[in-house]
Amino acid sequence: MIKTETLSLAEIEDLAFKALVQAGTDEANARPLAQATAVTEADGVSSHGLAYIPIYCEHVQCGKVDGKAKPIVTRPKPSVVKVDAATGFAHAAIDKGFEELVPLAREQGVAVLAINNSYNCGVLGIHTQRLAQQGLLAIGFTNAPASIAPSGGQKPVVGTNPFSIAAPDGQGNAAILIDQSASTIAKSEVMKHAREGQEVPLGWVLDADGNPTTDPAEGLKGSMAPSGGYKGVGIALMVEMMAAAMSGATLGIHASPFSGTVGGPPKTGQFFIAIDPQATSAGDFAERMVQLVGAVHAQPEARLPGDGRRNKSKNAQTNGVAVNSAVLDKIRAIISE
Amino acid sequence: MIKTETLSLAEIEDLAFKALVQAGTDEANARPLAQATAVTEADGVSSHGLAYIPIYCEHVQCGKVDGKAKPIVTRPKPSVVKVDAATGFAHAAIDKGFEELVPLAREQGVAVLAINNSYNCGVLGIHTQRLAQQGLLAIGFTNAPASIAPSGGQKPVVGTNPFSIAAPDGQGNAAILIDQSASTIAKSEVMKHAREGQEVPLGWVLDADGNPTTDPAEGLKGSMAPSGGYKGVGIALMVEMMAAAMSGATLGIHASPFSGTVGGPPKTGQFFIAIDPQATSAGDFAERMVQLVGAVHAQPEARLPGDGRRNKSKNAQTNGVAVNSAVLDKIRAIISE
Repeated sequence: MIKTETLSLAEIEDLAFKALVQAGTDEANARPLAQATAVTEADGVSSHGLAYIPIYCEHVQCGKVDGKAKPIVTRPKPSVVKVDAATGFAHAAIDKGFEELVPLAREQGVAVLAINNSYNCGVLGIHTQRLAQQGLLAIGFTNAPASIAPSGGQKPVVGTNPFSIAAPDGQGNAAILIDQSASTIAKSEVMKHAREGQEVPLGWVLDADGNPTTDPAEGLKGSMAPSGGYKGVGIALMVEMMAAAMSGATLGIHASPFSGTVGGPPKTGQFFIAIDPQATSAGDFAERMVQLVGAVHAQPEARLPGDGRRNKSKNAQTNGVAVNSAVLDKIRAIISE
Repeated sequence: MIKTETLSLAEIEDLAFKALVQAGTDEANARPLAQATAVTEADGVSSHGLAYIPIYCEHVQCGKVDGKAKPIVTRPKPSVVKVDAATGFAHAAIDKGFEELVPLAREQGVAVLAINNSYNCGVLGIHTQRLAQQGLLAIGFTNAPASIAPSGGQKPVVGTNPFSIAAPDGQGNAAILIDQSASTIAKSEVMKHAREGQEVPLGWVLDADGNPTTDPAEGLKGSMAPSGGYKGVGIALMVEMMAAAMSGATLGIHASPFSGTVGGPPKTGQFFIAIDPQATSAGDFAERMVQLVGAVHAQPEARLPGDGRRNKSKNAQTNGVAVNSAVLDKIRAIISE
């Protein structure tokens, strides 16, 4: 059994913040990342919560990310916000960008935010969710080092590249929150199986010749299987075009890895589209969403993307989150360094 | 062997136009649909080309679509174009909307087009491709009557709902054109197997209890299998939110069928996002696209979405298209009525 300790969300944010600052991050970069870490733990995505803090701290120390970066915000066209993350944390760049994106989307009906020179943004849906909480429909894209091969090819050209869409419920929450990668399974799951010497199910990875394999090590030398075959490649390409090409960020084929300390800053990108549903639907949006959500929830056992995170988050607000003690030990060791 | 006749693209457009007008469509509605029919045939998507003209004509005559509709264009916010298709053809509404969308996206950096009271828009990628040909990055969504069940459920709540993204190559064409539905296979393929009394492969459809079946008739009473399981449901939900909820159009659960003559106008919707890549990428977009496309084409046998259509289209410009003679007979019969 894994030993855990139950922490409040404020305690989680505080631990994350202190560790990041101790590692050399300034407050402007540490705060948004610490806040996102608490939300991620509340939503039950523990793989991307506190467990990532030691990696982030290591990356500040090795220069893979600049903990004191100052994101540069510009407005190249009336409805476009551009942020150069200056090889700092994505979270600070997104925060700065959202400060302009939200009022702009309300005013113009739609606005976009393009971020380059950026870094791993953690759970993408954390960011789109924030826009939905402000009454906007949000679509987000973020790219990653290449690990999926094109149809008919064997060499990776695009990352497991997730997209996310969050629709507001009009009451400060997301009615539906979709946040899904282009691969059948997360690459971290394959790496975990490789570390533990376990086979992976057929359909997770392909070897260097493009053939299905159950050997995770062969898969890591080959490529990740796209979800739904060529349609998964389509999703990964869409995300690559939006997060990298449209943002002027580094393509997955040229990006340094998100894990480990080599290669310098990955300089990948994010792209967000924020739309005012009132403007496009002539006020019909809320009613349509109630009908759509209702049609799903009318079926016993049926669920919508985002239902699980919302329920876990509600519980975490009052009861806190059980965090792996080994993770907490690592973070407390960083703080007391 | 199927008997065919080779026609030029101008001849295809002319036949489509004349049949539509003969059925009671006015020129403003018939022309954009006839042009799209020629492009669709050129791109090799014959299932949605001239073969659809007799259905469109029937729908004008039974009132499922108003052949003389006048789409109403408004500008509810500075970067939003809204079109009420007035239960006319989607193509005329899209045409009217694009006239405003294209200059607006260039000026603002991004603009959206929301269409309600609309109809089947044929091949979605035909429309996003037009925006890419004008130098804009385009994302499109269109919804359809419900045929995919939610995760954990059995009853359809969303259509096979395609999305499309077209990236400009800077030379008047699309560098990458993605156009894919949320289901494993097109519903028309299942209907064809049912008509011909043939089994379908496992993974195409689910019966009314949500179990996999090879019986197409059971599948048509049940639901279409989403591509990649729950991730395909996510795509269908994304498209439903954009094309229907965001446009104030009719949800798939309430829409009348696209085939047959009953139920009146489906009043479904379309949604397009057009972005100026120069504005968001600080001029780096073209170079990134060359690198991405190059990394794919450097692998023998590897291909990108849109490669097939582009090659077929190039060939069709000079050599014309071989069209099924039975389809041509039907259309000529309509014209000479």
